Amino acid sequence: MAYATIRDVARLAGVSVSTVSRALNTKGRISEHTKLVVEQAMKELGYIPDSRAQAMRSSKTGTVGLLVPDIRNPYFADLAYTIQDALFGAGYCTFIGTSSENADQQDSFIMSILSQRIDGAILVPQGGDSHALRLLIGRKLPLVFVDRQVEGLDTIPVVDSDPIPGLTEALEDIRAHGCSKVGYVSGPVLESPTLQEREYVFRELAAMAFGEDHVFVESTGFDQSSCVSVLRRMRRAGVGAVIFGYSPDAVRAVSLMHDNGIRVGLDISIVSFDDLEMFRLTSPHISVISQQVRRIGAIGAQTFLDMVVGHGAAGSHRVETTYIPRESVGRMR
Amino acid sequence: MAYATIRDVARLAGVSVSTVSRALNTKGRISEHTKLVVEQAMKELGYIPDSRAQAMRSSKTGTVGLLVPDIRNPYFADLAYTIQDALFGAGYCTFIGTSSENADQQDSFIMSILSQRIDGAILVPQGGDSHALRLLIGRKLPLVFVDRQVEGLDTIPVVDSDPIPGLTEALEDIRAHGCSKVGYVSGPVLESPTLQEREYVFRELAAMAFGEDHVFVESTGFDQSSCVSVLRRMRRAGVGAVIFGYSPDAVRAVSLMHDNGIRVGLDISIVSFDDLEMFRLTSPHISVISQQVRRIGAIGAQTFLDMVVGHGAAGSHRVETTYIPRESVGRMR
Repeated sequence: MAYATIRDVARLAGVSVSTVSRALNTKGRISEHTKLVVEQAMKELGYIPDSRAQAMRSSKTGTVGLLVPDIRNPYFADLAYTIQDALFGAGYCTFIGTSSENADQQDSFIMSILSQRIDGAILVPQGGDSHALRLLIGRKLPLVFVDRQVEGLDTIPVVDSDPIPGLTEALEDIRAHGCSKVGYVSGPVLESPTLQEREYVFRELAAMAFGEDHVFVESTGFDQSSCVSVLRRMRRAGVGAVIFGYSPDAVRAVSLMHDNGIRVGLDISIVSFDDLEMFRLTSPHISVISQQVRRIGAIGAQTFLDMVVGHGAAGSHRVETTYIPRESVGRMR
Repeated sequence: MAYATIRDVARLAGVSVSTVSRALNTKGRISEHTKLVVEQAMKELGYIPDSRAQAMRSSKTGTVGLLVPDIRNPYFADLAYTIQDALFGAGYCTFIGTSSENADQQDSFIMSILSQRIDGAILVPQGGDSHALRLLIGRKLPLVFVDRQVEGLDTIPVVDSDPIPGLTEALEDIRAHGCSKVGYVSGPVLESPTLQEREYVFRELAAMAFGEDHVFVESTGFDQSSCVSVLRRMRRAGVGAVIFGYSPDAVRAVSLMHDNGIRVGLDISIVSFDDLEMFRLTSPHISVISQQVRRIGAIGAQTFLDMVVGHGAAGSHRVETTYIPRESVGRMR
């Protein structure tokens, strides 16, 4: 735990601490020779100027905190990759933390990055308003929400996706394949205003296209054990196609359907949110509503960078969802 | 960028800076009333004790740097998740960085965490020895390598997997299905000593089991365009089964085989390293050599925690690979 300090550097270089400080600041009078001696001493000791002290001089530490719910979800892995890649290109190092869809874990990450003096943060926020979020906002550091917003914190710019275009096209494709009834599995809506909005938009659009009595929504309790019974119940009700608002549910469903002899695209049609690589590996390939995650990430990073250089108040941005038809939507038998 | 300082707290509480310091340290004489007044002032100002100052008192900041090559690779996402989950349980916040399989990006992450004064680091190291790695080691902080080692840095404990058991069983299964020739696709071996060792072990074991002339290795240039031609070339040579040392190659191959009418398990058998979820979604399911990534992560985190509390020198650990047979290894036609 032996950090070389500015005093160690001064001692080794045989100069005063204030001389080392002048060499670091490249301010004040200091001879080229002395500067070289100090630099040599720093190199020898592996001295790294404290980012705190640097931050006080330059107002920059070059680090950004990025919080995502779960990097095992390929959608969030892609989002985090895109953001850290764009920030690295702009000279920032990204510290990624995960909340495991748990507000306490989010708040713990926020407190950690606050005590480390970062330059700002990009968050996929978890749950509602919190003391830690308020502290972060109170710092007046650049802060951007991506994928989700937080009710009551309307001054923070949000970059997320608009579910309407993709859902509209998916419902049209399902109708064109002869389905008269459509189902929807919502995912963990309690954790995410985005999933709540998606379900709401689905209900509105599907009721218009199919009639209210022909729309079936399963918004809770979709787990390994209930998955097959939910799909069987929907089929018995005459549902020809199911849209999954939360891609991990779709992954689980496709896997269990295979094991239970339910044929995707023949016995029941499937559409999922998020254009995950694995949906192009299954047989048949799965039709998806893409959120264009790389655009969300790129715009999120750019919004953050605009705030850093102080291009005034950054605005929120919605990226259009797009529908990608594949083989998992078939003709009703 | 207005951080509340200990001076702001003292001013608001109407006490001296040293009184605030005593309240923070819970050392020295201080009345309950004064303590409450100070705490109230801290709360009002959103004051967070500087982790640097705390670190100097307690030698702990409660943060760990974790570097992985690419979180879009589900193997590394799983590894990072397991490690940060175990560390969170032990009271640590994990800052995850990615190297994008690029030594410069790794070194930039290391310099960032060094200037932030973290308690230690867990790295999937990138490439060889480097100045940044030497600085990190010079700090004498707890440091663990997972998944890979670095030549010449033999004092750092390494937690990785032993390819021999899984490869041995996979080759036995392939032989039992009537294959007389076997192929191997190595992945980006230049970036990873682990992939180099895997290829070496395959060559040795396969030559023993099939004879040297019946073993085909493709160790470079496996990309989207070459994938199908590599597989066709191997089939023409009479290869009945291909083992993929690097799972992203297998994912790409399965997807392209589907699109090119090459039937997995019928036209050619497939085994991949890493038990990824998507290998259980494909039809047929893919046989895998599991590295038991969660065990690697758990042991990596535990090795780190043992070093933190100073249980002497931590040792390296190899986790056995296991073979999971599925439908992608079929009888040669």
